[in-house]
Amino acid sequence: MTLPDRPAALALDAADPLAPLRAQFEIPPGLIYLDGNSLGVLPRATAARVQQVVQQEWGQGLIGSWNSAGWMALPQRVGDKIARLVGVGEGEMVCADSTSINLYKVLAAALSIVQADAGAASRRVVLSERSNFPTDLYIAEAICRERGFTLELAEADGIPARLDARVAVLMLTHVNYRSGRMHDMAALSAAAHAAGALAVWDLAHSAGAVPLALARDGADFAIGCGYKYLNGGPGAPAFVWVHPRHAGRFWQPLAGWMGHAAPFEFTPEYRPAAGIARYLCGTPAVLAMAALECGVDTVLAAEPLGGMAALRAKSLALTTLFAELVEARCAGHGLSLVSPREADRRGSQVCLTRTEGGYAIMQALIARGVVGDFRAGSGALPDILRFGFTPLYTRFVDVFDAVEHLHQVLLTGEWRRPEFNRRQAVT
Amino acid sequence: MTLPDRPAALALDAADPLAPLRAQFEIPPGLIYLDGNSLGVLPRATAARVQQVVQQEWGQGLIGSWNSAGWMALPQRVGDKIARLVGVGEGEMVCADSTSINLYKVLAAALSIVQADAGAASRRVVLSERSNFPTDLYIAEAICRERGFTLELAEADGIPARLDARVAVLMLTHVNYRSGRMHDMAALSAAAHAAGALAVWDLAHSAGAVPLALARDGADFAIGCGYKYLNGGPGAPAFVWVHPRHAGRFWQPLAGWMGHAAPFEFTPEYRPAAGIARYLCGTPAVLAMAALECGVDTVLAAEPLGGMAALRAKSLALTTLFAELVEARCAGHGLSLVSPREADRRGSQVCLTRTEGGYAIMQALIARGVVGDFRAGSGALPDILRFGFTPLYTRFVDVFDAVEHLHQVLLTGEWRRPEFNRRQAVT
Repeated sequence: MTLPDRPAALALDAADPLAPLRAQFEIPPGLIYLDGNSLGVLPRATAARVQQVVQQEWGQGLIGSWNSAGWMALPQRVGDKIARLVGVGEGEMVCADSTSINLYKVLAAALSIVQADAGAASRRVVLSERSNFPTDLYIAEAICRERGFTLELAEADGIPARLDARVAVLMLTHVNYRSGRMHDMAALSAAAHAAGALAVWDLAHSAGAVPLALARDGADFAIGCGYKYLNGGPGAPAFVWVHPRHAGRFWQPLAGWMGHAAPFEFTPEYRPAAGIARYLCGTPAVLAMAALECGVDTVLAAEPLGGMAALRAKSLALTTLFAELVEARCAGHGLSLVSPREADRRGSQVCLTRTEGGYAIMQALIARGVVGDFRAGSGALPDILRFGFTPLYTRFVDVFDAVEHLHQVLLTGEWRRPEFNRRQAVT
Repeated sequence: MTLPDRPAALALDAADPLAPLRAQFEIPPGLIYLDGNSLGVLPRATAARVQQVVQQEWGQGLIGSWNSAGWMALPQRVGDKIARLVGVGEGEMVCADSTSINLYKVLAAALSIVQADAGAASRRVVLSERSNFPTDLYIAEAICRERGFTLELAEADGIPARLDARVAVLMLTHVNYRSGRMHDMAALSAAAHAAGALAVWDLAHSAGAVPLALARDGADFAIGCGYKYLNGGPGAPAFVWVHPRHAGRFWQPLAGWMGHAAPFEFTPEYRPAAGIARYLCGTPAVLAMAALECGVDTVLAAEPLGGMAALRAKSLALTTLFAELVEARCAGHGLSLVSPREADRRGSQVCLTRTEGGYAIMQALIARGVVGDFRAGSGALPDILRFGFTPLYTRFVDVFDAVEHLHQVLLTGEWRRPEFNRRQAVT
């Protein structure tokens, strides 16, 4: 395949049926934003919607807006919209709390279910991937301590071999936050079930980025993040899904009043709501959830254009082009590809590594208006230059220009400047 | 004392040194809002600040705003501001998650501490008040189930007698959400400590309403709500405080990455941050926390005018006036006062009851532009008409007019109209 030059990249954009979706967003002029896998960009609709919630619903409607503005139903309404993006049914998902907290809820429920079915003495292991996103590992570590389980970590390829009769729950993030590698949800869920374990999936880097069919692919529980590919804004609420066969079986321990069967009866005893509503806890975060809904709507806007399948096709075209252009244009500069070459094993990001200078190279790119991020290596994990490609708003010409900037940063040695070598914490 | 007529009420407002604080808020013209104990009104600064966060910090600054706009520090910054309102030190409080979730964190830590100090076999009871806000009871019930403890409930006056060697934790809401009755935090914390238990306080109806000195008054842990007297907006984030002598002792189980000692090292093992930061869990809810900060600032604006002590004096003047006017003007209409007459036992609300028609009376009042709320009774608890008096924005003339409306609703029998007798869920 001949790699495109800039006019050819522009021609790809001109021919892209999804190109009009970009107009849904406020993107700073001239910026090439390849960090939507960390924080999605601002939808144009959000500012006005948030103002409406603040000034009209809260400011004017006040307490009455819990009913009149539908605030009480927000967790279900937004949950139902996200459900369409991840292939689950209406009424099976709610929007609530943070990813970490939702993971605690589902792990607690999953462990309770396994223990009830398998007996308390057996199956004392939660199995996960060593390079899973740390908050997932921390939450699992904490709940394992609480309940006398052990968290065991395996390398990605070693997971199937570790699924045995000791494992209660397999907990994985579908697309790895560092490498962009995507697990085979169907195969691993089936392997977990064959071993008698339940499968908990974190969709933080999947929802809105790759097509999902949670129930078909054997997921028992799933949680995910609102501020990455769903464009919900910084610290947006998260979501939680429980397979309907499990949803009614156990309380999750964060049994707040919004998960009660009748919150406004104010009974002293907890009586869990039917189904997924028992995974709610406190009062809904109305402002944040309204912003998230605008973000989810930007992804749903792709439905008439082919939906998640069309977004996935574009995402793969973008990431493939980026990887190929980097290898062609930046050859000899010490970069290597960390993300899988195989399309079906790759999420919507491309990660590069270099033995030296990764942080400074990313800073130099950011100074040029190409925003990705850097993740420091540790132990066996290499330093990572991470580039996310949100197909809703990333253009082929952005990919082309980003690689040209990367090439210039390397060619000129620009990244060696002192100002690009001072570290700051970045999400 | 002679009760004021309307000109006298207006004169009280004219002489009120706190009266200018009302200009901080957007209050719908003509509305008498006596429900700030459920959802505080909109501060004038909030809409612009939220727009700034949405359009500038998120829209333009994008991922860089985690550093450049101080998003990472929001939980501590807002926590430090709330700390000033509840009499605790800088660096001792964070803003995070919901009240329910923060309660789970502190109960988990408190139970761990008691068990470590007292031994696992003894002290298996969490003691609370039967009419505590239900979400607190549900969370306590859930964690008791998880850990093999028992939740025991007592009537308010019976609590001291129930504090014995079986009790691990006394968990109370400082001001009761139904009755407005305020516990003596110092006396009950001391009684808990004398019995060898820890004291966990929910400040949902106290923070921003009554002066607090948590450490002086023996609190071991405290949590509270951002959307009542702190005017943070619907579903605003909550706060959590842990006495410094406990803060470093145990993990709380919601051990997400923001509570890690070095979140951006992305280590697979959890290493809790020093002090209160380990009570953080997921990514901060930036939009919601920015709105909450504006609300907290409206309370801090009272500092040059005497701060919480001055607000409390006005609050008591308002609630006392309301109760006295109701008893004088509405005599013979079957209303009785549920809230304590003694000022030092009353929060910033006044609750009335009536054997019949409470819900409809409140609906009729709301139709007249006087907003309080209704809480249905159950068992021994009576129906409640609940009126909250936020001293930041409630005027003496509002109190006078509200009672006149109440009188008219009762005198005319207006509340018997069918439209006031159809139930809806209201927070």
